Amino acid sequence: MEPVSFPPLSRVAICGGTHGNEMSGVYMVREMQKQRADQAGSVSVTTVMSNPRAVEVCRRYVETDLNRCFTDALLSTPITESAPYELRRAQELNAQLGPKGSKQAVDMLCDLHNTTANMGTCLIMNCIDWVTLHIYKYIQSKMTSSPVRAILVENLSSEAYSLDSVGQHGFSIEVGPQPTGVVRADIFNMVKEAVDLTIEWLQGFNSGRTYEGGEVEAYTFVKSVDYPRDPTTKEITAAVHPQLQDNDFKLLRPGDPMFLTFSGETVKHEGEELYPFFVNECAYYEKKIAFHLAKKITLTVPSISVKKD
Amino acid sequence: MEPVSFPPLSRVAICGGTHGNEMSGVYMVREMQKQRADQAGSVSVTTVMSNPRAVEVCRRYVETDLNRCFTDALLSTPITESAPYELRRAQELNAQLGPKGSKQAVDMLCDLHNTTANMGTCLIMNCIDWVTLHIYKYIQSKMTSSPVRAILVENLSSEAYSLDSVGQHGFSIEVGPQPTGVVRADIFNMVKEAVDLTIEWLQGFNSGRTYEGGEVEAYTFVKSVDYPRDPTTKEITAAVHPQLQDNDFKLLRPGDPMFLTFSGETVKHEGEELYPFFVNECAYYEKKIAFHLAKKITLTVPSISVKKD
Repeated sequence: MEPVSFPPLSRVAICGGTHGNEMSGVYMVREMQKQRADQAGSVSVTTVMSNPRAVEVCRRYVETDLNRCFTDALLSTPITESAPYELRRAQELNAQLGPKGSKQAVDMLCDLHNTTANMGTCLIMNCIDWVTLHIYKYIQSKMTSSPVRAILVENLSSEAYSLDSVGQHGFSIEVGPQPTGVVRADIFNMVKEAVDLTIEWLQGFNSGRTYEGGEVEAYTFVKSVDYPRDPTTKEITAAVHPQLQDNDFKLLRPGDPMFLTFSGETVKHEGEELYPFFVNECAYYEKKIAFHLAKKITLTVPSISVKKD
Repeated sequence: MEPVSFPPLSRVAICGGTHGNEMSGVYMVREMQKQRADQAGSVSVTTVMSNPRAVEVCRRYVETDLNRCFTDALLSTPITESAPYELRRAQELNAQLGPKGSKQAVDMLCDLHNTTANMGTCLIMNCIDWVTLHIYKYIQSKMTSSPVRAILVENLSSEAYSLDSVGQHGFSIEVGPQPTGVVRADIFNMVKEAVDLTIEWLQGFNSGRTYEGGEVEAYTFVKSVDYPRDPTTKEITAAVHPQLQDNDFKLLRPGDPMFLTFSGETVKHEGEELYPFFVNECAYYEKKIAFHLAKKITLTVPSISVKKD
């Protein structure tokens, strides 16, 4: 593949507390603000506490999930008296860090998340973007404290609903397992290492370094699976099976145990072989998702370097 | 020691959802109600969803922590318009399962809890009670899926604030680690096994079996330790150290790492050797508790059997 060049990537935003009870990002942003880490060589760093009201009460959100508010449609909705807080906050963030889809938007937006699932370090991306895939490749090659994976949730930019879609480039860093409302030192250090490596990569890129291409693996979303439920009460009647629990990204084959009902019966997977992720994520109970299933793909990434003036 | 005899223990209450986001108890009570498990041989079983409003919104509590409302003083407080929901609910539960300190109270009250700490299965008791210590000894001898420990939080009965203090005998079953808002099959099964063994013990007791005495170990509360905090903002500035995280009940010696600050410094334990528990429990952030410290004691328990008419 031909090498590809991009303009310098000098403005990065590091956002935390987009979900107010995912504590690594909250403490990471507070620590960076305390350290006044607003310039790292060629890279200017903006740190943002995305949903301060949700952080204040230590909940995912106050009125609606902020990280579903960044579609073009929602960002252009007129704000009425009855608009949920998070919709107003999304438009504020879009004004500060975007506008989404414009050249004024930050060059790189990195949004920090935690999950109760045993996912290690994941970079979640809305599209195939050589810059973010190179950062993924770089983090994966340097990080030793956890496995590093990429998840591709392909959305048209206009329909991408997550905060990271506001940057010209962007991704979410999703690290787990960590209970909501809790900060674990090991998980905090994984988030910190991923952020430090992202900034290090950007500095290298801006200084003229060529990053060699190659193959990378990514997981692409196929479908979601709900918990078994009581037909009348709609309450869940089973937990994720112990053989699936904590085994995110381990291939789920037909016949493999998927759920264990509260009365002790095993429910098995039917259909094609797929990779589970976000297994037993706390916030997905209300979304009626026990886990997602993905395919694994291989992408060939070209070498990239900064565009010379 | 002389053998001790007690009247039959025929009325047991199994309570869940006292904290609305501790899911094992919620699903355990729902499952028992579905199975109509209201009579188990000689034992009549009452199942109670203690805080249905908190369960509904999947939070620990709605207005105040229900499991701090069962002191004599709070149970006799007149209920005004402005009384928190949980205080009203505590008095309802006391009317249903107590009154606390009376002979009408259920013979045994078993309250189901989860923690984000790696505590395995713990029986938490308000006083030295041969019946509950025997049940602990029995569960410990039968259960293989997790370590089983007893925690003694000595309170005068009048000042005991937890729901289990309403029964003539009672204890909380605290099982972890499990994130709030999440049900894990392994943790659910540990809770179920402990409940089943409790009922089995009561049946054996009522049928005239003598349970042999012996020595049991228990942990007694000494003090709590808060997180390091910023003197100005009062925000926490450190997480529990990776060497302490998940090591509940492993002796903490002077010089052992206790916290890791977000800027990377280690804070060490000073003072006497003690056993940490409730390490990094989610709900204790607001109570300003990073973990509790305990002493280990050995208790000699007499043989016990049912009082013959």
